[in-house]
Amino acid sequence: MSEKLSHSTYRMTGRPSLRSFAAVVGKKEGEGPLGPCFDQVFEDTTLGMETWEKAESQLQKEAVSLALKKAELLNSQIDVLFAGDLLNQCIGSSFGLRELNIPFVGLYGACSTMAESLALASLFADNRLADHAMAVTSSHFASAERQFRFPLEYGGVRTPTAQWTVTGSGAAVVSADGEGPYVRGVTLGRIQDMGINDINNMGAAMAPAAASTIKQYLMDTGTRPQDYDGIYTGDLGMVGSELLLQLLSREDVNLEGVHQDCGLLIFDRERQDVHAGGSGCGCSGSVLCGHILPRLREGSLKNVLFIATGALMSPTSMQQGETIPSIAHLVHLSREP
Amino acid sequence: MSEKLSHSTYRMTGRPSLRSFAAVVGKKEGEGPLGPCFDQVFEDTTLGMETWEKAESQLQKEAVSLALKKAELLNSQIDVLFAGDLLNQCIGSSFGLRELNIPFVGLYGACSTMAESLALASLFADNRLADHAMAVTSSHFASAERQFRFPLEYGGVRTPTAQWTVTGSGAAVVSADGEGPYVRGVTLGRIQDMGINDINNMGAAMAPAAASTIKQYLMDTGTRPQDYDGIYTGDLGMVGSELLLQLLSREDVNLEGVHQDCGLLIFDRERQDVHAGGSGCGCSGSVLCGHILPRLREGSLKNVLFIATGALMSPTSMQQGETIPSIAHLVHLSREP
Repeated sequence: MSEKLSHSTYRMTGRPSLRSFAAVVGKKEGEGPLGPCFDQVFEDTTLGMETWEKAESQLQKEAVSLALKKAELLNSQIDVLFAGDLLNQCIGSSFGLRELNIPFVGLYGACSTMAESLALASLFADNRLADHAMAVTSSHFASAERQFRFPLEYGGVRTPTAQWTVTGSGAAVVSADGEGPYVRGVTLGRIQDMGINDINNMGAAMAPAAASTIKQYLMDTGTRPQDYDGIYTGDLGMVGSELLLQLLSREDVNLEGVHQDCGLLIFDRERQDVHAGGSGCGCSGSVLCGHILPRLREGSLKNVLFIATGALMSPTSMQQGETIPSIAHLVHLSREP
Repeated sequence: MSEKLSHSTYRMTGRPSLRSFAAVVGKKEGEGPLGPCFDQVFEDTTLGMETWEKAESQLQKEAVSLALKKAELLNSQIDVLFAGDLLNQCIGSSFGLRELNIPFVGLYGACSTMAESLALASLFADNRLADHAMAVTSSHFASAERQFRFPLEYGGVRTPTAQWTVTGSGAAVVSADGEGPYVRGVTLGRIQDMGINDINNMGAAMAPAAASTIKQYLMDTGTRPQDYDGIYTGDLGMVGSELLLQLLSREDVNLEGVHQDCGLLIFDRERQDVHAGGSGCGCSGSVLCGHILPRLREGSLKNVLFIATGALMSPTSMQQGETIPSIAHLVHLSREP
């Protein structure tokens, strides 16, 4: 039974294990610094589908299928699947995963979904509600652009603070027992809204949520940033990352030298014209499953906090003059149990 | 620790208690057969807000606030809040609940959200992951119509199989201990897709999901429909309800005389021009929290299955020629522990 350290923070008392993980991405992500890490790079980002939304569903299907194969598990051995994405009514997940016949818990956490789904899967495994639980999410540059901004054909100019939605998906199997890496703890985030209303600066909107959740976990566990060899945020990008460090330094929490951001790791900002960095559910999803978890397994990382952040607005809420509420969920991962 | 009866079915071993519940609705729902059951009826369905989406957020805020008041709990005593709605990016929930400062798990289960959120809240309470967990959802006729169908001003003609989206919200507090009604068991549903592609006949699309989940729970618990004094589906309406009974009777499961549908209970189909009945997350949400749970508490109901069903399509998926995947989650409720 997981130990409740505060309202929102749980310490695992079993050994929930990341039995397997898989990441699939598009061409541009394959050309980035992490290209060689990913299990599969789709040079054709339509994945042979007739629409971008169907291509995104296919990304999830491929990631789940690879993770199941690596886990040497059949669909029928998975107790529950936690999934979500950015598309209206989360059709990336429902259409991508409908044939699996696995008990399905649909989530909406925007770009925090990889941490939200992994946190729930870990709690289910640690409390024996699942022998094997899966977490999966995705995003696709082309489906996100036309839904949230403009159709690609329009050729809109992007602001310097804008981020580039990652085409990719990450899927992980968390088992109640097994080899590492392990999940050690979880913090479920609270919605933060600091009044940011610039749709082209999501990193800034999400930084306060990341700061709040990281501070909560450190406080609840009595640890310092330097106790970890990596504190990975989801997709704050350049602007949001700087703001996160500033916000936390005001509270005497120093992330310098420990902080990494999935949105900055996945692309080469100089060479790939992505402005402030990568974003989208698939950004933290593919970096977690393609880069962080494999490094924990082989031992070059030992003790990591993974914090995916989500901006909980919609095009409709922006048109109605609303600000951008955001949220961040945290999962503590380690090589040893 | 909840006992796992199958991949998807859990029997509660503690006594997770429905400490409080509240339902708020709009004018039309207030004029329906259940009108007197609801905690609050808003004659002005704008709730004084400038947009329909903000009105929907306000519905959730009011329902949560009432449920907290009845529970005699402060926000700070709630460990986790499970919430979702039908709006793109679930803005009903994120904007309605952003000021609560409660750890927040965003869900997307379409009209299955009341059962999905209640199932997770119950599992959290039964496994001591929460002393108090909340479940909430909403829908609003006007925000749903313009997002899924036509702006109200267009005055489109509705087909006989169409359902009427309920303006309403339901919120419930599940506590690890306390007085009844109690949650006894949960089944998490699997996505079903029988190839239905008529957007004006959601009941038919969702009936197979309800049938699958009900059958699973009965099988896993070794019970028969006649062991319950009510089996309430979420919002199948007239067409979906008939189909559900047919589908289950083929498998020798007879729901005659036991089955009720929230979408048929909330409106008077003769008098209120709602065609096949009510629908929307707020339909099963408000009927559960305004009608079913109060009757369990006062004793006119003793043992009930609540199954909310969701259609997991979007306007985009429909335009792209897709069928309608659906899902149903089940919560078993009883007066005695």
